[in-house]
Amino acid sequence: MLARLPERVSVYEVSPRDGLQNEAAPIPLEAKLRLVDALLDTGLSRIELTSFVSPRWVPQLADADELCGRVRRRAEVTFSALCPNAQGFERAKAAGLPEIAVFLSASESHNKKNTNKSIAQSLAAFEDVVPPALAEGMRVRAYVSTVWGCPYEGDVDPRAALDITQSLLSLGCYQVSLGDTIGVGTPRQTAAIVEMFLSEVAVDAIALHFHDTRGTALSNALVGLMLGVRDFDSSVAGLGGCPYAPGAAGNLATEDLVYMLHGMGIETGIDLPRLIDAGRVAEAVLGRKLPGKVHQAGLPRLRS
Amino acid sequence: MLARLPERVSVYEVSPRDGLQNEAAPIPLEAKLRLVDALLDTGLSRIELTSFVSPRWVPQLADADELCGRVRRRAEVTFSALCPNAQGFERAKAAGLPEIAVFLSASESHNKKNTNKSIAQSLAAFEDVVPPALAEGMRVRAYVSTVWGCPYEGDVDPRAALDITQSLLSLGCYQVSLGDTIGVGTPRQTAAIVEMFLSEVAVDAIALHFHDTRGTALSNALVGLMLGVRDFDSSVAGLGGCPYAPGAAGNLATEDLVYMLHGMGIETGIDLPRLIDAGRVAEAVLGRKLPGKVHQAGLPRLRS
Repeated sequence: MLARLPERVSVYEVSPRDGLQNEAAPIPLEAKLRLVDALLDTGLSRIELTSFVSPRWVPQLADADELCGRVRRRAEVTFSALCPNAQGFERAKAAGLPEIAVFLSASESHNKKNTNKSIAQSLAAFEDVVPPALAEGMRVRAYVSTVWGCPYEGDVDPRAALDITQSLLSLGCYQVSLGDTIGVGTPRQTAAIVEMFLSEVAVDAIALHFHDTRGTALSNALVGLMLGVRDFDSSVAGLGGCPYAPGAAGNLATEDLVYMLHGMGIETGIDLPRLIDAGRVAEAVLGRKLPGKVHQAGLPRLRS
Repeated sequence: MLARLPERVSVYEVSPRDGLQNEAAPIPLEAKLRLVDALLDTGLSRIELTSFVSPRWVPQLADADELCGRVRRRAEVTFSALCPNAQGFERAKAAGLPEIAVFLSASESHNKKNTNKSIAQSLAAFEDVVPPALAEGMRVRAYVSTVWGCPYEGDVDPRAALDITQSLLSLGCYQVSLGDTIGVGTPRQTAAIVEMFLSEVAVDAIALHFHDTRGTALSNALVGLMLGVRDFDSSVAGLGGCPYAPGAAGNLATEDLVYMLHGMGIETGIDLPRLIDAGRVAEAVLGRKLPGKVHQAGLPRLRS
């Protein structure tokens, strides 16, 4: 049953971007720097810092340029940022980021609501972002949201998400992160989606991005692992989601994911006690309890 | 991978007992009745009401006799209660309960701390409880705690837990619930434990009882399901654990378990919207947010 588990997993940390973009009140730049600084000491090697979108759309991340300018850089840590369009790419380039990410949804309604474009228009817009970024020597990742379900349309055909993924890979993205944006997925569905993807794309071409809205994020990640997936997005302390319903949403918590992975003998390169410290920094920065478990409980006393 | 999933799962609800016994301030009897009443409308068919232990040890459950006398009875719902000894059994018999449960730990230190007995002494004491209960036509369940790890001893040999389980089954217990009492388990360990048990006992002779201290409860349950286990303990809204660390501990939340099961096409006989209502009643009764997810998020708008 656990025969296909990978020996090593790469964790892609999204808390500075996906976690902070939903905060009702923007977090001060100094507080963001404190969070990123804590993350830099954990052994995480991929951190998504921010989003180069219009401050009118996402005022929480209006300090994107300044944040990128002020974060401590470490050779072993790759920073990235979301870029929806050519202007975003130019800002990421100016910030000296080695990697960017583009994003769209698997369902038309959500994509329209989120980006004011049809899926075809989003894919067309990426032609002004991905090839220029690759020409600059940057790597480009992509997100496909609402793969497990759409808040407007309900069920989503995973075939549509796979077609979009193929387009993104053809355009030059090195990896497509598949998102259960509203946290509705359950394991049988996850198995069906991942198996469909792995029948057509290489395992390293996909990552899984779960939200824990209904408690199933880690179980869905386990299914991905059992099918051999080696790339998972997560957010320290489960940062993310709506601050008006504490505990109800949020991303899969990085420390919970890493606790499970290490408990299964899967390497991540991450120092779990330091990650737990970073989770506590995230709570201090946000000024409230966050839903991740392991940063609250700590490690068992008598185990490593 | 999901070939051995059961078609139907039996959920054993422990919130009135395991959930409430750890509350710092005892919950008023009327509030407990309100919680049980809400649970009775969900389709749950097995509810552990309370514990007939000494009020000196567990003052939170000192109203056990009165609670049993006042709860609404439904023919399709089996109530049970913990009974550590012959006095407890006599109280359960007087209360007219059709089922009781005995309990001990797989690790000597935890059993001593929890019951002031060695494991051998606990098993000997059950000879004054289980046969008399069976002679009265009652059913007897058992708990073995700390199977995944002990807060005092660290790692626990699952062979010891299996030997205890064999003794309990020989004594006449119909089912032994294996507990990850401190919430340390991860899926590979769970698979190893469950596979060891299933090599020697029938699948219906065991149940799995996970605490979500480190976020792995549902993933561990998924592993049990994949190995064919059909009996799971849980607590509505994740009630249980220490109220001083909200969200950090608690039992596996019944609504999160049932959401996952129904999402996988596994029947439970439970009405999930009513269960969500009961989770909200649990929060009202306790006067604080509880860690379960689905009672907070609700069901997806466009799905059943």
